[in-house]
Amino acid sequence: MEHGEAAATTGKEIKCKAAISRAPGEPLVIEEIQVDPPKAWEVRIRILCTSLCHSDVTFWKMKAGPGAAFPRVLGHEAVGIVESVGEHVEEVKEGDVVLPVFCPDCGECRGCKAAKSNICSKFTSGSVSGGMPRDETSRFRDMNGQVLHHFLSVSSFTEYTVVDIAHVVKIGREIPVDKACLLSCGVSTGVGSAWKVAQVEEGSTVAIFGLGAVGLAVAAGARMQGASKIIGVDLNPDKFEIGTVQKKFGLTDFVDPSTCGEKAVSECIGLASLMTDAFNSSREGWGKTVIVGVEMHGSPVCLNPYEILRGRSVMGTLFGGLKPKSDVSILAKKYLDKELDLDQFITHQVSFNDINLAFDLLLQGKSLRCLIWMDK
Amino acid sequence: MEHGEAAATTGKEIKCKAAISRAPGEPLVIEEIQVDPPKAWEVRIRILCTSLCHSDVTFWKMKAGPGAAFPRVLGHEAVGIVESVGEHVEEVKEGDVVLPVFCPDCGECRGCKAAKSNICSKFTSGSVSGGMPRDETSRFRDMNGQVLHHFLSVSSFTEYTVVDIAHVVKIGREIPVDKACLLSCGVSTGVGSAWKVAQVEEGSTVAIFGLGAVGLAVAAGARMQGASKIIGVDLNPDKFEIGTVQKKFGLTDFVDPSTCGEKAVSECIGLASLMTDAFNSSREGWGKTVIVGVEMHGSPVCLNPYEILRGRSVMGTLFGGLKPKSDVSILAKKYLDKELDLDQFITHQVSFNDINLAFDLLLQGKSLRCLIWMDK
Repeated sequence: MEHGEAAATTGKEIKCKAAISRAPGEPLVIEEIQVDPPKAWEVRIRILCTSLCHSDVTFWKMKAGPGAAFPRVLGHEAVGIVESVGEHVEEVKEGDVVLPVFCPDCGECRGCKAAKSNICSKFTSGSVSGGMPRDETSRFRDMNGQVLHHFLSVSSFTEYTVVDIAHVVKIGREIPVDKACLLSCGVSTGVGSAWKVAQVEEGSTVAIFGLGAVGLAVAAGARMQGASKIIGVDLNPDKFEIGTVQKKFGLTDFVDPSTCGEKAVSECIGLASLMTDAFNSSREGWGKTVIVGVEMHGSPVCLNPYEILRGRSVMGTLFGGLKPKSDVSILAKKYLDKELDLDQFITHQVSFNDINLAFDLLLQGKSLRCLIWMDK
Repeated sequence: MEHGEAAATTGKEIKCKAAISRAPGEPLVIEEIQVDPPKAWEVRIRILCTSLCHSDVTFWKMKAGPGAAFPRVLGHEAVGIVESVGEHVEEVKEGDVVLPVFCPDCGECRGCKAAKSNICSKFTSGSVSGGMPRDETSRFRDMNGQVLHHFLSVSSFTEYTVVDIAHVVKIGREIPVDKACLLSCGVSTGVGSAWKVAQVEEGSTVAIFGLGAVGLAVAAGARMQGASKIIGVDLNPDKFEIGTVQKKFGLTDFVDPSTCGEKAVSECIGLASLMTDAFNSSREGWGKTVIVGVEMHGSPVCLNPYEILRGRSVMGTLFGGLKPKSDVSILAKKYLDKELDLDQFITHQVSFNDINLAFDLLLQGKSLRCLIWMDK
């Protein structure tokens, strides 16, 4: 279905292809599904391309708990075109290019109105429940009539999805859609963490634990902010060619903790313990530790209170502290002004039918971002 | 020995009275001791009055570890007059009124020069070792020649002490010495925590866990910064008459967690767990948890990383983030300008011979600050 035909589908169910996650860790299955029309405050979006973020993998693997909801339409980093809108939606219209964003921006609550926060008080950021934000119901069914769960209020591994207007960001047509796609989650989260959360100052030193796309986006953000020393820390120096990565992302140093003696290795097993390591390596007096990643095992992060008293702080926020509806377009402009390089994050591209290849590449540590094109 | 006779003692040992802590938890013993003349970069101070802070009690009770150093001259909140100075000391001279402060301010290192920190990189804040900062040796001996340990680079439970110039703050004669004494540790720490660390904004809500002098000084600081709601949390509502305390310190609300059901009680046993409680009670989006107290049991503070991702942060610093040599005089001026009330913190006064009474009052939760006068 091409842009321009949208009017014919407005108010009707759409049958389209989706990649369904039916069981934990099993390959996605491309199937035909039915997508309901948007209800009030909702937008139906034709996805142009989507990319795989590590949080998709986390929930794809999940075997228990409220996050383990199958069958499900995963995917939350994407760009698309508005196919139709529900009642009360005035912010976007049919044909607009939009990013669905897991981080809500209702624009009305105290959190959204405050300059100092991007945490919406009305909707839950990254809700793992399987429904739409306002009524908790689904807009997806398979051809047997089985309800399919939504994911993080986005669900982009489908030709058409329905997203609440609080999770929709309109974006200009100047930025190529593949670059725009990256701003829907990972790169924005990393760049924002350096820019809005750590508020990296010119001439400062930044250490980044974990050099996936988000970590390297922190490096890009730190460089954008004028950091003079950017240290990458990763256990897998072979994951990418270090020299190439350093040059592309502006890392000035690289540390492989596995070569630093046993102590570092044993403390880097869990992610929460890695947070503690990062905290302990921060500078006394004013060192800031920014938690960017979602802890995988439900472990607490444990800190020595005396080290806090030595002037160290710990902070974090979702989506890099960015307010989706105002800050994402600033990053898009920085890309167009060549202040922020997005091209380097796209290491692979596959057609929608090959979506499981994107999982393989990420799991093997071979990709930063693998774009999944719906019409290729 | 009265002020004016100082010249006669310059360069010589001084015999004077001190309250010695000889064994963990045992009453201090008033004895005659010998105090060496100040070495280079050091200042010998005649203490006018000192007050008991909870950290004195913590180290007085300590039975093991590097902090358990006996016999010792405790005390670290005081005001005095310079008796004589060692070589290279130009910042203060004989007769100046000074505060000895556990938090160093060398004025030369990157930490001291940075606007954003009060953590000196050259000297250790609140060193628990028993010696002077530069050579780790003691200036105190008892009449049997036994070396007495210093405490936190101050040791104020003596008529004369020797303090490194990095730990000496000159203070104007306008402020009464008893009020000045409070600015040497506890009240500065509390007020600074609201002012410099939390950077409390006008109209904001502040919750304070623990209503000792430092906690109530946080309330005073929060009021000074224009907070509209100041909630005191303490397990002992009978410690002080709540109504009186509220009125004096500007608390708008009081919560006794022991009346809030079992969950709160069980989580409030340790201080580290209380830090976690405070963190969890902070507002998502921009809630700041400021660690002010020194954790007593060496326990880590454990935080749920997901709550950090919801925009909560944890921070802390020693001495309320104040740079002793520049910020203490600002607080003194705020007192003189009636923007900061210090009088209310002084609940008791005793003579030096009755110093153990000050311990009793604090241990029984009856005092905020008990002033100990050397010449009364």
